[in-house]
Parts: sequence; structure tokens; C-alpha cells
Amino acid sequence: MSKSLEFLTEALRRLPGVGPKSAQRMAFHLLQHDREGAAQLSRALYQAVDAVHHCALCNTFTETETCDTCIDEERDRRLLCVVETPADQMMIEQTLTYKGLYFVLMGRLSPLDGIGPKDIHLEKLLARASDGVVSEVVLATNFTNEGEATAHYISEMLKARGLQVSRLARGVPVGGELEYVDAGTIARAMLDRRST
Amino acid sequence: MSKSLEFLTEALRRLPGVGPKSAQRMAFHLLQHDREGAAQLSRALYQAVDAVHHCALCNTFTETETCDTCIDEERDRRLLCVVETPADQMMIEQTLTYKGLYFVLMGRLSPLDGIGPKDIHLEKLLARASDGVVSEVVLATNFTNEGEATAHYISEMLKARGLQVSRLARGVPVGGELEYVDAGTIARAMLDRRST
Repeated sequence: MSKSLEFLTEALRRLPGVGPKSAQRMAFHLLQHDREGAAQLSRALYQAVDAVHHCALCNTFTETETCDTCIDEERDRRLLCVVETPADQMMIEQTLTYKGLYFVLMGRLSPLDGIGPKDIHLEKLLARASDGVVSEVVLATNFTNEGEATAHYISEMLKARGLQVSRLARGVPVGGELEYVDAGTIARAMLDRRST
Repeated sequence: MSKSLEFLTEALRRLPGVGPKSAQRMAFHLLQHDREGAAQLSRALYQAVDAVHHCALCNTFTETETCDTCIDEERDRRLLCVVETPADQMMIEQTLTYKGLYFVLMGRLSPLDGIGPKDIHLEKLLARASDGVVSEVVLATNFTNEGEATAHYISEMLKARGLQVSRLARGVPVGGELEYVDAGTIARAMLDRRST
């Protein structure tokens, strides 16, 4: 195989979820059928690495000092929602139920992977939440073990500073049939039952 | 989402097998955890698009006029093996059972997708096989419907020019248990049975 092709195949393997066979298939596909796409991807990668950094306020990806959401005057600055990733933030935005601001951890606590409080920017979050305007922090990390642990850690940290902290509700998903919902979820929904 | 990030996500979607969710995950991963990998991939794509073209003799990807295999003096120039892709060629090389040369179609006949004889360079193959040195053409296209049709078409084309044409043997795979081999394969193995 030619050197450039080998170099390309190796570089493609750095993408998450791409093994040696997929990388080869991608390289062949681009060179045979989509050289324009390859050139476009090359430019996009270069540009993104060059231009994209973290928002000074919420830590998400942005090309400006502060991201569009953080400077939006229509947002409720008293609410701060903590999410693991920009993708999670986008999911919440799509629900159209939240009008506050965000803080994006860009990860979750995971001692086994060596990811501690510093790696998910908790000092920055603490400073952000203590700006005197934020009155409630909504924890929207995932409901996985690591997401729950992260939420717990942040909750303790912020409550020690006298901040009000809440967590997304747990329960049976919309459209969920009890027969097919796991017992843990039903148990939680029972404990958290609400009067109607 | 920032413009550069959107541009990158769209460009990643041009990779085969990558949908919107994967593309987003890849973009976030590169920017958060592997900016060096992103820069490397950018350079690799640029370099490959710039340097890689088709071998004048066998049509595979190469950076030189003629690929390393075609100029290898130790190869048996009387044998020409026809494969669909460079990946197929590499698989055959790994068997260490073939010492002839190759012709890489870079595709297969597929009328439904609008891929005809011209798209798989059959004129180039015809010229290559008619060089007066090649005495046998081994068809090693896939044993799919399209691969078989391609082999049949090439076989007719080359035999009309008086060339000797062969096809890889079909049969039960090594390690195959009859109970789990499909009936078509067993039927073919029965028809092609060999005296021992």
C-alpha cells in the first residue's frame, strides 16, 4: 500500500469507533469515489482545530470568546443547567422547556479512567455558579453510574456554598409500558411518585 | 453549534457508514480529546488526495507512475489476477500462494447503480491482458451476484481474444461444518467435487 494511503488509514483510526477494516474502507472510498469530500474534510478539520475553543462562561465549544447561548439576552440568567456534553445540551434545547443558561462539563467524573474534578472543570463551574445571579443549578448529567456520581459530587460542592441545586426527574419514560421497563426505574418512579 | 463544528460534522458524514450521531460524536471527540489526531487526519487527507492516483498498469492506488507490485522483477508476469478492490488484493497477498501480477477494477459491474464496463476500466484490463506476456487471467472478484456477473462478463470478453481465463474455486470454507454451511455452497462443492 502506498505511504500516503497508509498514513491516511492510520489517521482515520483515531476516529472513535473506527477499526482497521473501517479505516481502510473509508480511505478507499474517499480516494475512489469522493476526493472532493476528502478535501472538504481536510479543510473542516484544519479549520475546527484552529478556530474552536471553549466558551469563557459555559465551557462549550465556540469560535467566539463567549458562546451565542451565553450572550443571549432573552435567557433566564438565574438558572444554570449542568450537562456532560454539547450533545446533551442540544437535546435539552430541542425540548423547548428550558430557557436558562448552561455549563458543559465536557466529561464526567470517572476515577477508573483517571478523570477527576479538575478534568471536568469543576472550579470553573463553582466560579460560574457563584456569580451572585444564578439562584438554581439544575443537574442534567446522565443517569448512568458515572453521571449520577458526578451529579452527587457537584451537588455537595454547590450546596456547601449555599446554592440551590436540583436534578432532572427520574421515572418511567413517556410511552413506557411497565411490563418492559426495568425494575430499578419503576422502583424510583414509585419512591418519587407525585400527588395528582 | 459553532460554524466550524457544523462544517466538520457535515464533512465527517461523507465517510461511509457515518450518520449524523456518529459524526457529531467524532467531531466532539477530536476537539475535546484528540486535536493532534484531527490535525494529523487533516494533513493525511490533503496529502492522499494530492499524491495518490492509479497505477498505469494495474489500476491500484499508488504514488508513483507504476506501483511497487507491478515493477517487482520477482513476479510471474504470465499470471494476471483480477480483483475488485485493493483490499481484496491485500487479502490474496496475505495467503502467500500467488506470485503473479494484478489488475484492480476499483469496483464491480452493477447496472442497478449505473456502473457499467467503462466504470471498472475494462478497456484498460483488455489492453493489459493482451500484452503478449500474460498467458492466464485469474478472476478473483467476489462471489456475490455482482461479482459473479462481473467475472462472467470479463471471462467472455477475454476468451473472445483467445486468452486463458480461470476463476477462484468455490466450495466449503476451511473449518466449515456442513451443518452450518448454506445449501448453495454445498451444492456447488458437490458439483465441483474433486477425485482424491
